[in-house]
Amino acid sequence: MTDLGIDHDARLPYYEQLKQLIVREIARDSLEPGHLMPSEAEMCARYEVSRTVVRQAVGELVNEGVLQRRRGKGTFVAKPKLSEQFMESTVGFFEDMTSHGHSVLSSVLSVDRVEVVGRARELIGASPGTHCIEIVRLRAVNDEVVAFTKSYIVRDDETMLEQLRGTDLSTASLYRILADQFGLRIDTGHRSIEAVAASGMLSKLLEVGSGEPLLYIESVARNSAGEVIECFLAWHRADRMRIEMNVVRDSRHSAGASLNHG
Amino acid sequence: MTDLGIDHDARLPYYEQLKQLIVREIARDSLEPGHLMPSEAEMCARYEVSRTVVRQAVGELVNEGVLQRRRGKGTFVAKPKLSEQFMESTVGFFEDMTSHGHSVLSSVLSVDRVEVVGRARELIGASPGTHCIEIVRLRAVNDEVVAFTKSYIVRDDETMLEQLRGTDLSTASLYRILADQFGLRIDTGHRSIEAVAASGMLSKLLEVGSGEPLLYIESVARNSAGEVIECFLAWHRADRMRIEMNVVRDSRHSAGASLNHG
Repeated sequence: MTDLGIDHDARLPYYEQLKQLIVREIARDSLEPGHLMPSEAEMCARYEVSRTVVRQAVGELVNEGVLQRRRGKGTFVAKPKLSEQFMESTVGFFEDMTSHGHSVLSSVLSVDRVEVVGRARELIGASPGTHCIEIVRLRAVNDEVVAFTKSYIVRDDETMLEQLRGTDLSTASLYRILADQFGLRIDTGHRSIEAVAASGMLSKLLEVGSGEPLLYIESVARNSAGEVIECFLAWHRADRMRIEMNVVRDSRHSAGASLNHG
Repeated sequence: MTDLGIDHDARLPYYEQLKQLIVREIARDSLEPGHLMPSEAEMCARYEVSRTVVRQAVGELVNEGVLQRRRGKGTFVAKPKLSEQFMESTVGFFEDMTSHGHSVLSSVLSVDRVEVVGRARELIGASPGTHCIEIVRLRAVNDEVVAFTKSYIVRDDETMLEQLRGTDLSTASLYRILADQFGLRIDTGHRSIEAVAASGMLSKLLEVGSGEPLLYIESVARNSAGEVIECFLAWHRADRMRIEMNVVRDSRHSAGASLNHG
């Protein structure tokens, strides 16, 4: 590969060379996120490679989050994703984002006493008919919508409900409020992370196309006595968020114990 | 809600009642994963609710992983996902799966000396022109393809390459082999998790439709001296895999420090 184009004598496959050329052009020309990339046909002509090579290069860059496809619109330079480092430090979304200099603004869609059902009830392990306080929020980071969350506080307490309704949750950490105002302190938790396709209301709220990938997180939080005090279901825009974590070898395992995909 | 249908006098919204009815029917009739659910029109007629109610109920069950949409084919009962618990114990994919009674079979697509480029080079922090041993695998759990992985061992070593080519990697932990055969022990790591849309070759290899969500994991592994010895890029079928983890409050933070979405 040369700076000018594909090097047909190089050992590196054409599509790898093309990937590097595209990445280099994005950097060199300071192409902004959202910049429309040339079409497949234009790339074929410009780099003098086959459509197969262009497809593989662009496909891999999409899979690596460098480029982004929008159905029927073309391929664009992707935005760098926000990193959630919540595994490493167990700080929350609000603290995590604000401590990295981002602004968080939550639009509180509802604060209600509800009968907890479905996944939330399973996560809490509550019997049918149990009531909780449900807080539904649409959360924006740096003025961009990134997450839709449903939090359930395992209390059927009208006074607490009224107090929460009277509290500004738009620029605050819910867990901080639970701890400071209600003495509910979180000690341990369990979480799962999945990828799901955006569907119905979620795609509208998060402003993504139907079927676009979302990061879906379920969480259960317990106090030091092991009682569940809260759970949440959270859907994150996959084009805006990644989850980061540090891991260490588990001393319970032998020296050769492997990390993932070992 | 009654066992027979929607209770129009209940306080629970119709779509929540319908969600519960659908979940109950799946359990009661032991509907298998892959079972085709009735169409929206059929559900409207059967439960005597509007299409809006059916859409919201089905949409939420899709977002919660209970149902699965396949474009142009309909809505199906989803398979329960395999849980990767690699955060909690830092055991690897192979050990994690086999210790939970699953069988892992990797189809080794290539073991090569390559110039490391793109994301892999960034993860390793290598200078341009650095060569590594690349191992590309398509991994199946219980005879179903679930992950496509590219591992890079940061060694430019022909002897090691030949030894790895002579080793059966199809039913083995790579990290176990690195430790036992080559003395390369992993001490710490850094990982990120994203959701991406399947594109090109990936959708073919993982047997999912183009645009379907995938869980994408990047990982860097270091030895006790802090040197990078391996990295991988891994794409998981989102309909088959979830990532689970336990978290504990970080003592570096104050007692009120929050977990995610606090």
